Amino acid sequence: MFFKFLPRDGNFFNLFDKQADFAVDAAVCLKEAVSKDHIDEEFLQKMRNIEHQGDEVAHEIIDRLNKTFITPFDREDIHALAKELDDVIDMVNTIISRMNVYKISGVDKNLVEFSDVIYDSAKAVACAVKGLRNMKYTKSLSDSCVEVNRLENVGDAMRDKVLGELFEKQKDPITVIKLKEIYQDAETVLDICEDVVHVVGSIMVKQA
Amino acid sequence: MFFKFLPRDGNFFNLFDKQADFAVDAAVCLKEAVSKDHIDEEFLQKMRNIEHQGDEVAHEIIDRLNKTFITPFDREDIHALAKELDDVIDMVNTIISRMNVYKISGVDKNLVEFSDVIYDSAKAVACAVKGLRNMKYTKSLSDSCVEVNRLENVGDAMRDKVLGELFEKQKDPITVIKLKEIYQDAETVLDICEDVVHVVGSIMVKQA
Amino acid sequence: MFFKFLPRDGNFFNLFDKQADFAVDAAVCLKEAVSKDHIDEEFLQKMRNIEHQGDEVAHEIIDRLNKTFITPFDREDIHALAKELDDVIDMVNTIISRMNVYKISGVDKNLVEFSDVIYDSAKAVACAVKGLRNMKYTKSLSDSCVEVNRLENVGDAMRDKVLGELFEKQKDPITVIKLKEIYQDAETVLDICEDVVHVVGSIMVKQA
Repeated sequence: MFFKFLPRDGNFFNLFDKQADFAVDAAVCLKEAVSKDHIDEEFLQKMRNIEHQGDEVAHEIIDRLNKTFITPFDREDIHALAKELDDVIDMVNTIISRMNVYKISGVDKNLVEFSDVIYDSAKAVACAVKGLRNMKYTKSLSDSCVEVNRLENVGDAMRDKVLGELFEKQKDPITVIKLKEIYQDAETVLDICEDVVHVVGSIMVKQA
Repeated sequence: MFFKFLPRDGNFFNLFDKQADFAVDAAVCLKEAVSKDHIDEEFLQKMRNIEHQGDEVAHEIIDRLNKTFITPFDREDIHALAKELDDVIDMVNTIISRMNVYKISGVDKNLVEFSDVIYDSAKAVACAVKGLRNMKYTKSLSDSCVEVNRLENVGDAMRDKVLGELFEKQKDPITVIKLKEIYQDAETVLDICEDVVHVVGSIMVKQA
Repeated sequence: MFFKFLPRDGNFFNLFDKQADFAVDAAVCLKEAVSKDHIDEEFLQKMRNIEHQGDEVAHEIIDRLNKTFITPFDREDIHALAKELDDVIDMVNTIISRMNVYKISGVDKNLVEFSDVIYDSAKAVACAVKGLRNMKYTKSLSDSCVEVNRLENVGDAMRDKVLGELFEKQKDPITVIKLKEIYQDAETVLDICEDVVHVVGSIMVKQA
């Protein structure tokens, strides 16, 4: 298609790379958070900064999209990609914020496991997003998407296992309310990561 | 409009018919699930198969959409319809999976009632989706949409009634947590069915 | 752009003004609801009427959109704006309905505070939506958007504070379940108000 010869705006790629890096930063922050006895103010501030910077990149993408006539891929895909990456960061922020508000203390091994899977997924998401720049379906991009899908299934099974155990063993209903929500949030991060690579997949199919 | 004389891709209709049939299969599966004392592994596998096949049809629709230049109706409507039908199946799968994870045992008459309404709604959704092929607003298509809207209202009233009773009569907070979520999920299936026929309605208005 | 000289359909603006007014009506209704000892049938009916009229305006917007070739701004923005305004009204309706179903009685000072913030946000949303008609970024429109964003942050902090207190002080798990959901719903109204002004912002950027 002649479209391929039109100049492409490299800045969108740079901005998406940045946003994906903030998603990885958020995942790193979560890994640290769940390994502590409790969330302190310094830590909350660190996560808030990541979320705030991620927001700014998302707004820059949308503003640029609204002002740019020719974009490297479909407008709705640019919009969806920025939104889903922002949602990954927001959801991680929500988990850390809830752990603080609900005064979760002590290291919960389920949350440690979840945060490892979330970190792996965020890394694979970043790899997939950075692969967009090449505009072809490389093995590395394809492998990253497959990995994110795999980790979503891992997360589903983990959530079912930990919720089953929670209902079986935890007799305090208030603790059940708190942990149930946070475990479900953790699995939701992996769902949103999968949504990101669905958008990446859509973009690549249209380039083919 | 001259657009009407362009060749239309019959395959989209076939794929949507398939997806709608899987939504009905999921509803049948739910009806069976809630009539059993508990969900066993064989049953979970059956539902997972339906969900998996539904996923494959959804992906085929999106892939085809991304590769097709002229589509029988607006691209965003095709995308929305595939997504909403997939969401119906996913939500039913979520209910059955939660009943298993939460170890719900014994037949709950509220869930039996909900599953009947969900089945009726899925049947009416399938009828509406299959009517798209004719590209005109037949009485049957219109009646199906009205029926799905009616059943959503029935579901709203049922959810309010059963949640009111649950909070009044059930003294075990853990049971409240479990059943509240599953009743709300059941009502959500009916909301998503309504979303499907909203998309169908949008498509028909544009054909007029 | 020559586009600016094309006739613009004034009716979209009238319809959005109406929808925004219904959002304010819903917020007024919520303020009244939370100042009462309990929600009675007359009150539920009042809210249902607002929700129903709001629905009708939303459907009129979508129908008109599907039948109109040239619209005053991007089709997807019209769709998004109608949907988000409808979601504001629906969420307020959900809160009032839940207060009734969960038999919340007595005046809860947290809900009174939330309803004040929601009312302020709905007023600012209406001001922003009504500013669209001028098709330029007036100070009043810009101030309204900033205010809605500010109130969303206020709501976030309020939710964290009241949930923290709820978990600390409320020993009855059933009451925790009920109030937690309603407080989170209240904060969600403010999130959706922010989504409305994001759409308004997108529209204004494209006009620049």
